[in-house]
Amino acid sequence: MSEIDSAPYRIAAQPYYRPVGNEVDLYTAAYAARMPMMLKGPTGCGKSRFVEYMAWKLKRPLITVACNEDMTAADLIGRFLLDINGTTWRDGPLTLAARMGAICYLDEVVEARQDTVVVIHSLTDHRRTLPLEKKGEVVEAHPDFQVVISYNPGYQSLTKDLKPSTRQRFGAMVFDFPNPDVETEIVAHEAGVDSITAVKLVEVAQRSRNLRGHGLDEGISTRLLVYAGRLIAMGIPPADACRTALVRPLTDDPDMQDTLDAAVDTFFG
Amino acid sequence: MSEIDSAPYRIAAQPYYRPVGNEVDLYTAAYAARMPMMLKGPTGCGKSRFVEYMAWKLKRPLITVACNEDMTAADLIGRFLLDINGTTWRDGPLTLAARMGAICYLDEVVEARQDTVVVIHSLTDHRRTLPLEKKGEVVEAHPDFQVVISYNPGYQSLTKDLKPSTRQRFGAMVFDFPNPDVETEIVAHEAGVDSITAVKLVEVAQRSRNLRGHGLDEGISTRLLVYAGRLIAMGIPPADACRTALVRPLTDDPDMQDTLDAAVDTFFG
Amino acid sequence: MSEIDSAPYRIAAQPYYRPVGNEVDLYTAAYAARMPMMLKGPTGCGKSRFVEYMAWKLKRPLITVACNEDMTAADLIGRFLLDINGTTWRDGPLTLAARMGAICYLDEVVEARQDTVVVIHSLTDHRRTLPLEKKGEVVEAHPDFQVVISYNPGYQSLTKDLKPSTRQRFGAMVFDFPNPDVETEIVAHEAGVDSITAVKLVEVAQRSRNLRGHGLDEGISTRLLVYAGRLIAMGIPPADACRTALVRPLTDDPDMQDTLDAAVDTFFG
Amino acid sequence: MSEIDSAPYRIAAQPYYRPVGNEVDLYTAAYAARMPMMLKGPTGCGKSRFVEYMAWKLKRPLITVACNEDMTAADLIGRFLLDINGTTWRDGPLTLAARMGAICYLDEVVEARQDTVVVIHSLTDHRRTLPLEKKGEVVEAHPDFQVVISYNPGYQSLTKDLKPSTRQRFGAMVFDFPNPDVETEIVAHEAGVDSITAVKLVEVAQRSRNLRGHGLDEGISTRLLVYAGRLIAMGIPPADACRTALVRPLTDDPDMQDTLDAAVDTFFG
Amino acid sequence: MSEIDSAPYRIAAQPYYRPVGNEVDLYTAAYAARMPMMLKGPTGCGKSRFVEYMAWKLKRPLITVACNEDMTAADLIGRFLLDINGTTWRDGPLTLAARMGAICYLDEVVEARQDTVVVIHSLTDHRRTLPLEKKGEVVEAHPDFQVVISYNPGYQSLTKDLKPSTRQRFGAMVFDFPNPDVETEIVAHEAGVDSITAVKLVEVAQRSRNLRGHGLDEGISTRLLVYAGRLIAMGIPPADACRTALVRPLTDDPDMQDTLDAAVDTFFG
Amino acid sequence: MSEIDSAPYRIAAQPYYRPVGNEVDLYTAAYAARMPMMLKGPTGCGKSRFVEYMAWKLKRPLITVACNEDMTAADLIGRFLLDINGTTWRDGPLTLAARMGAICYLDEVVEARQDTVVVIHSLTDHRRTLPLEKKGEVVEAHPDFQVVISYNPGYQSLTKDLKPSTRQRFGAMVFDFPNPDVETEIVAHEAGVDSITAVKLVEVAQRSRNLRGHGLDEGISTRLLVYAGRLIAMGIPPADACRTALVRPLTDDPDMQDTLDAAVDTFFG
Repeated sequence: MSEIDSAPYRIAAQPYYRPVGNEVDLYTAAYAARMPMMLKGPTGCGKSRFVEYMAWKLKRPLITVACNEDMTAADLIGRFLLDINGTTWRDGPLTLAARMGAICYLDEVVEARQDTVVVIHSLTDHRRTLPLEKKGEVVEAHPDFQVVISYNPGYQSLTKDLKPSTRQRFGAMVFDFPNPDVETEIVAHEAGVDSITAVKLVEVAQRSRNLRGHGLDEGISTRLLVYAGRLIAMGIPPADACRTALVRPLTDDPDMQDTLDAAVDTFFG
Repeated sequence: MSEIDSAPYRIAAQPYYRPVGNEVDLYTAAYAARMPMMLKGPTGCGKSRFVEYMAWKLKRPLITVACNEDMTAADLIGRFLLDINGTTWRDGPLTLAARMGAICYLDEVVEARQDTVVVIHSLTDHRRTLPLEKKGEVVEAHPDFQVVISYNPGYQSLTKDLKPSTRQRFGAMVFDFPNPDVETEIVAHEAGVDSITAVKLVEVAQRSRNLRGHGLDEGISTRLLVYAGRLIAMGIPPADACRTALVRPLTDDPDMQDTLDAAVDTFFG
Repeated sequence: MSEIDSAPYRIAAQPYYRPVGNEVDLYTAAYAARMPMMLKGPTGCGKSRFVEYMAWKLKRPLITVACNEDMTAADLIGRFLLDINGTTWRDGPLTLAARMGAICYLDEVVEARQDTVVVIHSLTDHRRTLPLEKKGEVVEAHPDFQVVISYNPGYQSLTKDLKPSTRQRFGAMVFDFPNPDVETEIVAHEAGVDSITAVKLVEVAQRSRNLRGHGLDEGISTRLLVYAGRLIAMGIPPADACRTALVRPLTDDPDMQDTLDAAVDTFFG
Repeated sequence: MSEIDSAPYRIAAQPYYRPVGNEVDLYTAAYAARMPMMLKGPTGCGKSRFVEYMAWKLKRPLITVACNEDMTAADLIGRFLLDINGTTWRDGPLTLAARMGAICYLDEVVEARQDTVVVIHSLTDHRRTLPLEKKGEVVEAHPDFQVVISYNPGYQSLTKDLKPSTRQRFGAMVFDFPNPDVETEIVAHEAGVDSITAVKLVEVAQRSRNLRGHGLDEGISTRLLVYAGRLIAMGIPPADACRTALVRPLTDDPDMQDTLDAAVDTFFG
Repeated sequence: MSEIDSAPYRIAAQPYYRPVGNEVDLYTAAYAARMPMMLKGPTGCGKSRFVEYMAWKLKRPLITVACNEDMTAADLIGRFLLDINGTTWRDGPLTLAARMGAICYLDEVVEARQDTVVVIHSLTDHRRTLPLEKKGEVVEAHPDFQVVISYNPGYQSLTKDLKPSTRQRFGAMVFDFPNPDVETEIVAHEAGVDSITAVKLVEVAQRSRNLRGHGLDEGISTRLLVYAGRLIAMGIPPADACRTALVRPLTDDPDMQDTLDAAVDTFFG
Repeated sequence: MSEIDSAPYRIAAQPYYRPVGNEVDLYTAAYAARMPMMLKGPTGCGKSRFVEYMAWKLKRPLITVACNEDMTAADLIGRFLLDINGTTWRDGPLTLAARMGAICYLDEVVEARQDTVVVIHSLTDHRRTLPLEKKGEVVEAHPDFQVVISYNPGYQSLTKDLKPSTRQRFGAMVFDFPNPDVETEIVAHEAGVDSITAVKLVEVAQRSRNLRGHGLDEGISTRLLVYAGRLIAMGIPPADACRTALVRPLTDDPDMQDTLDAAVDTFFG
């Protein structure tokens, strides 16, 4: 069991990550305490990239699971598969991470049914074990193993929330979009546009974020700003680029589209 | 893995597509930026044909998935199948497209459960990877790979909508029926009728489209106009052809049928 | 693939069908245009028999699928089955029909979940292809292939209806019970009763059809009239035959049964 | 296919059945016309036994299916099973009956989901065929084949009813408990009690049947009367026998039990 | 088939059962008449033990099925399993009991979905047969076979009840907790406490049973009294023993716990 | 069967457990009586650790099952798996525990569907047997076997509760967070902080526990206090450590976060 190959899960190159506060120190201490961590924040604000950056920095393999409602406990833990010698066991990503000492990252954890999520409980308290009931084995987690989960508290429905008994197993860090200066720097760097264009794009995004809860579920993310910048860098007229990359994806509501188009025209008209 | 045969997914002949604006340039730039794209517009307005045309023009293979509510994550990603040597893995269309560098087109994406659609998330952000958890492999997308989705925002129920965290990964282009002149040209070309007949058919369609939201979910599509034209070209009396190809398919409501029949009689009576 | 045996799907003998209008010419033109067709009308009015008649007349094989809510996309498209060499693919009826150039008839299509029905979309627009995603094959429809669907718009619940994006792919023909003279001829011919008895049976049916929406979901069908006629031809007293074949099957409501029994007694008392 | 062994489905000995009207002649004619039949009536009034009797009298094998909500189309039609040579097809009871020329009796048909029941449609109209889509075979029904269904219209909920398109395929016969003289004869014959006791038991049952819809879903059936009679014949005090076999099974409602106990005491106190 | 080994289902030693009325004679007669039986009464009042006692007394094997909502018809009847020669049939407990002539005891039958329970119908009327549709076999029940079901009518929800068509197949016996003198004798005998302690425990139970329907679903059962007695016999202070074995298990409601604690203190304070 | 290896389920080292009352004696007596036990109390108050401690003290193996809504009866009991010789049976954790004489601990039992939980019934009354219906075996529990269940009565929804027929099989012990002195000792011991810091952390927790039912489902658990202490011990500023480990995990509600942050600032500001 000690020869599990972690190479496919190693982060080869340093991911681009722009710290915005003490989050790196805090996570480093949390990892040292092997405290399971919960990252909260809106879509596209950089939670996934932060985990990649920390896995790279801490030199740990990273196993990411994109949670969805079809996900079963077996998808996390593993299952028996049939081959020429009969059924053989194949570890799921959670089990693999526990054996290997990886950071296991459950992305958008509230998308999973919370009845599935409870399988992480015994790995996230003092036991740090995972019973493979179907296999009759109890896996002791590797000393370097840690569970990280992320979700967006902003638009979850009432029926999708973590159970209290799950929450009580995690420390939590709150992420948000970076402040305008930092975001401008990120957009300019990733999209390859000048800082004047980047400033304008960030202004448009700010407007949209003020509409959260007033007709929009979410505001324009940093990720979409980078896309808009790339279109502009390729010669698409800025207003067309903004409509394509920022406004039309966000909403089907004609009034809301008009409002956002007006914001685009203010800066790029 | 590098020898995947993309031939079955190549578009052999140039598809008939009549541009109506700057959509070809915009898509070309979006593809160059590898921005995932979302095509919005009513049924039968030409979204699918546009994607075929662009795949042909960009010389990329095209893998189309007709989304439906039964579709599972495994239908997109792949699954283990049993053969004489036991279970072997078979890539799903999304995985195949990611390996091959194809355009992967998820047609009518809101028909799928949105909990299934989240499997595209890691392919549509900076990661451009697809974890095959059941297989223990992480697929890096080919540099030419792109995801395109389409849907009709017009008649979706409240319970069928894209998640904000999905929307935020796409640029968006809006399609509608072509303007009357262009539509007349298309109907005449595809149905083989004279332009006077084509003009009248387009007039009937316009009337029906004004009834959207007033008893009709959708107006008559260009596709149905072509069918009506073909029946007329084969000698079916035009009013019969219109009833068969335009009115009866659209609605079971007797009042709405009378209204549409009257429109037919205005032009073909 | 070119050697598919269509013999089991050929209509050997000319089915008895009594045209009531221009439906044969209209369908012939629609088939020539390879327009997918939708047949609408009440239970037992002859839609299925019309399709059989046209398949016989056009010399095409006919593959019928009785739709039901359990039907999955795999039931239409096909699936992998296990045999001694492992899993082998077996075409479903839709795939088989597409390869063979058959008329594929989806009977009572609204009984299927509409999320299943969307698998016919790519076969019913300009593409005329069927992607077999699980098999990694794209089937090009045979030039003679056509899809026909039927349903009864009369008693469908609000939750069972075709999607607009499905409707927009079909021409439509409306069927109803034949007029009294034609129906009398049919009943006399098929049941082997004299025309006086046939006239009376048709009169009883007319009365019941006037009760549609007033306590009855449907009126007495031609098919039940033929059964009643056969019982009479075997010597069962006509009133007993009518109660058994026309009244008792139609409703469990005692008041409605009394009303219909009175109609029977008017003609056969 | 012609060598199917029908022996296990033959009724060896004449079942005890006491005709109460013209039901034997009517059924004989219906069978001669191969009209599918529907038997309606309360639980325990003799529908199942009547079918057995007619199968015996007509010298046809009888295949009974006890319908339930878990029943799938495959349970009726058949499925592929795996054996040493791979998957082999096994006919379901409906298919077996169609090949063999049996009477196929779907007992308590409304217990099945009506979406399952539609698989009988093509066997119950002029087609008399059963497409085995999974197998790629179309079974032509044996000339002696007939479908019979039964149900109890008395206590069905609104959500459980036959579809109109199913009803329109059947003739119908209505059953009820026999009249008191006949029922007394049956109870005395089957339970082995004297006719005075049998009369009293039938009187108790009559009282309970008057309570249908007034606190009871059903009255006491002939079957329970026979059980009560047998307990009495074995020396159990009649009042105890009636409480055990007639009252306690019927209801958990204390008031209703008191009412029925009083009826018992009136005749056996 | 005649060599089925019934040894594992034989009751080796006489179970402790304390008759409280004529239930042994009544059941003996019911079994002699092969009348299916229904045992009604609250949890823990001795229904299961009574069946064991009768099976021992009548020298019949006993096959018990603990009903639950996941139970399918196949769990009762049997299924095909795969072994080295392909699929082989394995009888379920109901089939096994029918072949062996056992008493088949469906414990807590309303926990099963009533659509599953209908599979017992043909074994509980004059037919005494069980069609194994998947296997193509009709099992004739052994002459000694009998079906017994139990349930608790006290706290069943409205959605969980036996169908009338199921009820009509059974005789019924009503059980309740024994009278105080008998219950005291049982508690003293099974827990090994003196009769003064047993009397007090029974008094506490009586109080709780008066609260049925007034905040408690059920009162304290004889079984819990025996547990409390055993704790006392091991030296646990009686009030602690009562809180642990009688009060805390019964309810999470603090007010109800106070009421019951007060009853405990009255007798053991 | 007697050679089951219990070694993987033995607790090697004495778990840290700080008794807070007579719970050790009470459980010891309950185990001696083989009374099934139910442990009630909030998340993170030490129920799981108590069971581990008792298993270690009583020298019994411990098999823990983390209950979840996907859990089926087969997950507890066992199932047939396919290997090179066909299907072989694999015991589930409940069956394994019953054979081995382990303590079987169903953690968070109300997370399971209560229809699954009924499979423990025959192991938790006088029978102490487990019928393996699919295998045709009746397992007699080892004399040392005991079932223990836990749950949190505080935040269960109305739809998640134990059935009365399940409750009546268990003795019950109520757990809560330890008193402040004991909790301070635990936090200081496990986190490695001085007692002044530990006192303050416990004070913050007390405040949060007073908010239960007033905006919080649960208060801060001892487990989270230990995490906060570890972060402080690693040099993270105490207020940051408390926000990360105590406040942010507990709630997404901004008002509630402000209230808790204020409590943190009172003690660590």
